[in-house]
Amino acid sequence: MSSFVIRGNLCYSINSNQINIRPQAYLVCEDGVCAGIFDALPERYAALPLTDFGDRLVIPGLIDLHIHAPQFAFRGLGMDMELLDWLNTYTFPEESKYAQLDYADRAYGQFVSHLRRSATTRAVCFATIHTPATELLMEKMENSGLISYVGKVNMDRNSPDYLCEESAKKSVAATEHWICETKSRFARTKPILTPRFVPSCSDALLQGLRGLLEKYALPLQSHLSENFGEIAWVKELCPDTEFYGEAYDRFGLFGGDHPCIMAHCVHSSDEELELMKKNGVFIAHSPLSNTNLASGVAPIAKYMEAGLRVGLASDVAGGDTENMFQVMAGAIRASKLRWRLLDQEVKPLTVDQAFYLATLGGGSFFGKVGSFADGYEFDALVLDDSALEHPQELTLRARLERCIYQADERHIAAKFVSGTRLF
Amino acid sequence: MSSFVIRGNLCYSINSNQINIRPQAYLVCEDGVCAGIFDALPERYAALPLTDFGDRLVIPGLIDLHIHAPQFAFRGLGMDMELLDWLNTYTFPEESKYAQLDYADRAYGQFVSHLRRSATTRAVCFATIHTPATELLMEKMENSGLISYVGKVNMDRNSPDYLCEESAKKSVAATEHWICETKSRFARTKPILTPRFVPSCSDALLQGLRGLLEKYALPLQSHLSENFGEIAWVKELCPDTEFYGEAYDRFGLFGGDHPCIMAHCVHSSDEELELMKKNGVFIAHSPLSNTNLASGVAPIAKYMEAGLRVGLASDVAGGDTENMFQVMAGAIRASKLRWRLLDQEVKPLTVDQAFYLATLGGGSFFGKVGSFADGYEFDALVLDDSALEHPQELTLRARLERCIYQADERHIAAKFVSGTRLF
Repeated sequence: MSSFVIRGNLCYSINSNQINIRPQAYLVCEDGVCAGIFDALPERYAALPLTDFGDRLVIPGLIDLHIHAPQFAFRGLGMDMELLDWLNTYTFPEESKYAQLDYADRAYGQFVSHLRRSATTRAVCFATIHTPATELLMEKMENSGLISYVGKVNMDRNSPDYLCEESAKKSVAATEHWICETKSRFARTKPILTPRFVPSCSDALLQGLRGLLEKYALPLQSHLSENFGEIAWVKELCPDTEFYGEAYDRFGLFGGDHPCIMAHCVHSSDEELELMKKNGVFIAHSPLSNTNLASGVAPIAKYMEAGLRVGLASDVAGGDTENMFQVMAGAIRASKLRWRLLDQEVKPLTVDQAFYLATLGGGSFFGKVGSFADGYEFDALVLDDSALEHPQELTLRARLERCIYQADERHIAAKFVSGTRLF
Repeated sequence: MSSFVIRGNLCYSINSNQINIRPQAYLVCEDGVCAGIFDALPERYAALPLTDFGDRLVIPGLIDLHIHAPQFAFRGLGMDMELLDWLNTYTFPEESKYAQLDYADRAYGQFVSHLRRSATTRAVCFATIHTPATELLMEKMENSGLISYVGKVNMDRNSPDYLCEESAKKSVAATEHWICETKSRFARTKPILTPRFVPSCSDALLQGLRGLLEKYALPLQSHLSENFGEIAWVKELCPDTEFYGEAYDRFGLFGGDHPCIMAHCVHSSDEELELMKKNGVFIAHSPLSNTNLASGVAPIAKYMEAGLRVGLASDVAGGDTENMFQVMAGAIRASKLRWRLLDQEVKPLTVDQAFYLATLGGGSFFGKVGSFADGYEFDALVLDDSALEHPQELTLRARLERCIYQADERHIAAKFVSGTRLF
């Protein structure tokens, strides 16, 4: 593992309400891990290679807790419907193409090359039901240098013939085969169990996935309480549950003894939230997607205050971009409209909170990730904001704030993941 | 004036609900005006110079009906307050800097160079109260090749000492001097009367501006019904008015016999809307600004249905970007959250409607602008979307839709304003 020193204007969250800014400071990386921030470099590090990034900003890498790799192909398209129609009309036909490996090769190649150039250092991805294409995606992610979880999707009911696994048993068997193929194959890319959502998964399938979860000690991701139509459908499918999350929980697929991410949680009930808190379930807040598909806006400030674990997600292609800066800005904007139009009890998100969610908030799913404090993995973005011209002096804090609203891949001058420099 | 032919995939609105797409068609420009769209070029145009833009998309230039040139300096900053606090804390201090011509030179230089590279072909701009800086902005706008109205701002009350004109009389005199200096000086850049908003303008000042409006036959721009605090303040300042717009109308500054743009109209009453319709007042819908400052969301589909005149606006720096593609996407997004969170009676905006608003909707303030139909001024953007990779075939319609969500200045390969190619 690499050890080195960089110098620049360091900006990172120390808690959900406070960004720490260390101008012209040294950040030491020892064996891929942050080992200290110093105004003057201590003698003991003098022998390490030093890169001085001058007046540039250095921030932790951004974490995307929920992104659909196969949907990147139609980002920015077909957002004139709500969730269930959108799935049937646009998403499922597109995902069916990944049965063909040459299509997957081309599409995933584009996805991974964009993600590599983006602000994202770590991502939790949905693939499709197709094992060969999912393994191909994992190979490409591995080669990109990014760190990720990738899930082969499970769907065995209420899905079109062209995108439905034959039976719960076959879905579980294919998933186990895929897990065995991939769980030790990559350094940076790991499998994650991925039942699409309750409507697509029979009880037998969910039961089978619980078996795999125990046998292989895997994390799990799915969708939860995104859209009113979806929630009503789950209630109909699972009449004996009190709330949507219970439909996962009754099979032991809702956190607790395993790491778990649920995307959206726009309309979660108090009971659902309580169980998520108890079980340590991560919420992947997807503001652009929840806006584009007119799902609503999750009350994130309330969730944070309640001590729930929340990170940000692009949710491509409900979200139209992989750019996590835009996701941060989108989270702030959506929270402001929620405050203005719906509920003045839940305050809008601040810049500090959005930055926290995109770094430490989501990062903690990966362990000690999302900060420059001692012991955190060395994920960093060096931002060159000189193209964002301004006529006046700006504080470092103002420059960071501006990047949240304006930066994209053009402004990333260097990117480090777990101590390795990608570019 | 120039005459020539271009060829490409033409996309333009034929009404507020329909985009017309003409693949690989010829568009003739005669003396700066659109003179026909043809699948095969008629013999009579064979002698005109032809530029073939291949598979690129060609759309009308985008129209920004409301942008604060001096605020470009702090775009993306300080959006943690509502309107009135935001003005006092961030905006007025920044605008006061334009008393210094060297600052104005640097700041307006950056503004104009970004606007020239952007998707905007025509803009209606606020400057500041400072005449020399406003004239400098007009010179720079003229040299950019863009077409614009620029307003020296009037403020004579409720404004900080450092940004307040001495008296109504002096404000009117300075404005008249500026009008005389600039009304015939430029080919593409014209003065527009610009009382900031009712709280900043005394009755005597508004009365005086009415005199100038009649004497010089000028258009007028201001702000209207943006924020609840602002509206309550206007009611307090003008107790004898029934609604905000009446505070302009009682001085003859609310359309009717002169072109008029009112920015925002988020919370306009039915009476206000009725008067705007009667008087042909243009609404500059500023979705990013109204979101960033938590003002709310104007019910634009309702306004369009009622036959009001509506265009789109970046409203930098309430809006954080001059990119009118983002403003279109922002208008759609804001309308979806309004629909979901507040009022399912007003439908979300469609892609077709947003495109119409940014082209024909706002364009009609400038005359026959915003279309490729015969007789419209030849404003066009050539979009090279090849960097927006995709693995599948896409229709021209899908490519256009994707640009609305994803394009920025990088994707503009050529720009024409009134028959002149800027780049």
